[in-house]
Amino acid sequence: MDKSSDKEKKDGKSNKGLSVGKSEDFSTWYSEIVQKAELGDLRYNVKGFLVFQPWSVLCMEKMYRHFEKVLQDKGHEPYFFPTLIPEENFMKEAGHVEGFMPEVFWVTQGGETKFKDKLALRPTSETAFYQMFALWIRSYNDLPFKTYQRANVFRYETKATRPFLRSREFHWIETHCAFASENDAMKQVEEDMETTKEVLHDSFGLPFIFFERPQWDTFPGAKKTFAADVLNPDGKVVQQPSTHMIKQDFAKAFDIKFKDKDGKDKFVYTTCYGPAMSRIFASVVSVHGDDKGLRFPWEIAPRHVAIVPIDDSSELVEKAKEIKKRIGEFAEVVIDLSKKTPGERFNSWEMKGVPVRIDIGKKELKEGKLSVFRRDLNKKEVIAEKEMMSYLEKVKKESTKNLMKGADEIFKDRIVDVASVKEMKKAIDSGNIARCEFCSIDKDGEKCAEVIEKEVGAKVRGTNLKKESVKGKCAVCGKKAQSVVYVARDY
Amino acid sequence: MDKSSDKEKKDGKSNKGLSVGKSEDFSTWYSEIVQKAELGDLRYNVKGFLVFQPWSVLCMEKMYRHFEKVLQDKGHEPYFFPTLIPEENFMKEAGHVEGFMPEVFWVTQGGETKFKDKLALRPTSETAFYQMFALWIRSYNDLPFKTYQRANVFRYETKATRPFLRSREFHWIETHCAFASENDAMKQVEEDMETTKEVLHDSFGLPFIFFERPQWDTFPGAKKTFAADVLNPDGKVVQQPSTHMIKQDFAKAFDIKFKDKDGKDKFVYTTCYGPAMSRIFASVVSVHGDDKGLRFPWEIAPRHVAIVPIDDSSELVEKAKEIKKRIGEFAEVVIDLSKKTPGERFNSWEMKGVPVRIDIGKKELKEGKLSVFRRDLNKKEVIAEKEMMSYLEKVKKESTKNLMKGADEIFKDRIVDVASVKEMKKAIDSGNIARCEFCSIDKDGEKCAEVIEKEVGAKVRGTNLKKESVKGKCAVCGKKAQSVVYVARDY
Repeated sequence: MDKSSDKEKKDGKSNKGLSVGKSEDFSTWYSEIVQKAELGDLRYNVKGFLVFQPWSVLCMEKMYRHFEKVLQDKGHEPYFFPTLIPEENFMKEAGHVEGFMPEVFWVTQGGETKFKDKLALRPTSETAFYQMFALWIRSYNDLPFKTYQRANVFRYETKATRPFLRSREFHWIETHCAFASENDAMKQVEEDMETTKEVLHDSFGLPFIFFERPQWDTFPGAKKTFAADVLNPDGKVVQQPSTHMIKQDFAKAFDIKFKDKDGKDKFVYTTCYGPAMSRIFASVVSVHGDDKGLRFPWEIAPRHVAIVPIDDSSELVEKAKEIKKRIGEFAEVVIDLSKKTPGERFNSWEMKGVPVRIDIGKKELKEGKLSVFRRDLNKKEVIAEKEMMSYLEKVKKESTKNLMKGADEIFKDRIVDVASVKEMKKAIDSGNIARCEFCSIDKDGEKCAEVIEKEVGAKVRGTNLKKESVKGKCAVCGKKAQSVVYVARDY
Repeated sequence: MDKSSDKEKKDGKSNKGLSVGKSEDFSTWYSEIVQKAELGDLRYNVKGFLVFQPWSVLCMEKMYRHFEKVLQDKGHEPYFFPTLIPEENFMKEAGHVEGFMPEVFWVTQGGETKFKDKLALRPTSETAFYQMFALWIRSYNDLPFKTYQRANVFRYETKATRPFLRSREFHWIETHCAFASENDAMKQVEEDMETTKEVLHDSFGLPFIFFERPQWDTFPGAKKTFAADVLNPDGKVVQQPSTHMIKQDFAKAFDIKFKDKDGKDKFVYTTCYGPAMSRIFASVVSVHGDDKGLRFPWEIAPRHVAIVPIDDSSELVEKAKEIKKRIGEFAEVVIDLSKKTPGERFNSWEMKGVPVRIDIGKKELKEGKLSVFRRDLNKKEVIAEKEMMSYLEKVKKESTKNLMKGADEIFKDRIVDVASVKEMKKAIDSGNIARCEFCSIDKDGEKCAEVIEKEVGAKVRGTNLKKESVKGKCAVCGKKAQSVVYVARDY
């Protein structure tokens, strides 16, 4: 880590910080932080593909561990499936073909050999898992059958790409499960939503609303789609994990049958769920970051503590090593010995968002004290060296909660009730999410959604899972409303 | 895990065990264990691609963590690079093009768009990393620059594929490093070899010999290649991690320069190192397995303890849960409640290779005892329940060492000195590695290597790193020998 800070200096970029405030110009702030905190490099020579740098990878690896532990505890077993899927697998389910074909990368050649049948770089892996489910699932005893894989997936996006948020290759977990009944499948969808809350909110500090998506916006091949929308500081929403109640069409297309207790052969019901680490990382950056740079919840901080000896005298450096050793397994520690001024080094660790910085100077050393800085509160104080461990324990305990509290602020007062398209546009232009009564989230409502898309440039995100009472008319067409929907711009 | 055992039963396969002994017919033994221990499924519909099942993935995930921790402790920082590499990057270094082009999978299309320039599915990532090195490395202060990535790579293999050992997609770690001098680079190569010893031998219990490969068998673009060969029970060797001293040609091709202390611009020296998790897993299976099935070193066992209640009475099941809770964080525990006979369940956990099995029956329960089985020694005993934790601690401490001891046996007396091609063939046909004096491992010796390949069907693996004295003539051409080389068949 020290090294990269060094480089910053040589590029003449260090200590400059961010040129804009986060609330002032979010889009510039985000681009700058990706570059200045060395999260990803956009200069790779394939369009829409990002080089993930150490500071983002370390965080994402922790996210993966966290998610995988929770999934395994809930009975999912891990697989690695091939990255390549034959075209014929895609062709088996009509909705899926239509939804994914436009964004599939195709492998057509190996060495000098041109393939007769082309192979897809997986955009998602239903059609890979399901053909194996058909071989593995035999009886009701095999159900539920709950799997997942950690994988990178590929989509030839036509929309503008944005680092971490939308790239042509991204890193995710996909779960694929099969059940004996629609009821069991629905319980899985609920479990997925609970998992999202446990991980994204309780551990990563990200607030979100789970919506049932309108029928015209479900996952290709799914009957129902539920997705967590995180609100960005600029008022746009980011779709985070979504979970899907799949139609039996897939089970029929891939012939996934089981012998039930009554001796009859029946088709399974399937679900899938897809948390994308790179995209969740984008929300961690966007939601928790401030005008000084990144801030990380303790659980997923790439490193927890940075120690900055004020100069490179051996007594200070030795002290730093001694402290690092004392902290031991409790937290991951970096000692910053780069050749920048103390001020530059302080700033660079604020930019990088380590939860705690410990500065060691000769004065403090003599007095048996440490100068400490906690990033969740941006608070500097001097503590007795012997209190260090209890100080770290306190920060570990409080920091994620503090970030979460700040994050909840984003949603506060940002949901505005509207009764017309005009009011909707005004609310959304001011950085809010609009809530209104709406004719229908079945196919019938799609026309009104198109009006909103055209006139407001925003999307109907769906209905809140908490039932909301409907009494009036659709804000668009004026017909009797059947639902309360939320409307927002997205990424 | 319980579920999969269930399935075994329904398939009518359970309790059958392996049809051949490992020493009797290794090849059949290996194929059977892959299937019966549910490690991988070959029925995926793209040739040469494997579905990795939970029992192999859980082990490989632990291997990854182990390797990544060691690499990070030694100063490597993690990256995720794009899977796709433009053809032009490959074309920049002549040796590399020639070496890899025949086995590259090509992406030529995204959606309906045909690409003007095709993109390679990475067979290895030098040409991706190096173009970024050229942007990131500026001065001697940036060096050494040590990176790695966890990644899946693709090779359109023309050789026969074999699960885990050689597939068209495999899972590995690749490190890429840059240095100011050839000397520094060579030290990295030595560090890589030390890392291999620490991880593969000391933690995974795999014995190997590190060879310097002959000049005609170096990595495409490398000056020197060092590779660890593990000996399989059938006498063939498996190439495990290799580390490469790269020619400066790459630095020149990609223009990776740094400003040295003397103010001059110089090209860096690079190295790379590639431990393949799926292939190391194959060696863990091959080397440690026995006639009953798999055996795992504690550190990488997918699960450590299986508890088998003899029947499904609530008192036994409750006891199993209580024991699992007591073991807590110390070991990963599975409770087997599948509907098979106790004998079938015992066998299935021996096949799966958990280090410890705990059987709970009514008699033991009443007496406050547990029936325990340790897989490293295949030894069953009855212990007092209160001794359980110390028993587990003992097995954890001893089992990897015991497996290692057994593994070392494979190499014992298997290196046979030979002085002619005829003797060589005899030694190798009997499952040995042949050692002989040899004219030269520079280009000059290639002809003799071809003779060996043709007449013995074996390869010159290279020279041992420990200098061995040469006094006689080449076993093939009879000219004055310059080296002692090892010759073996490989996978």
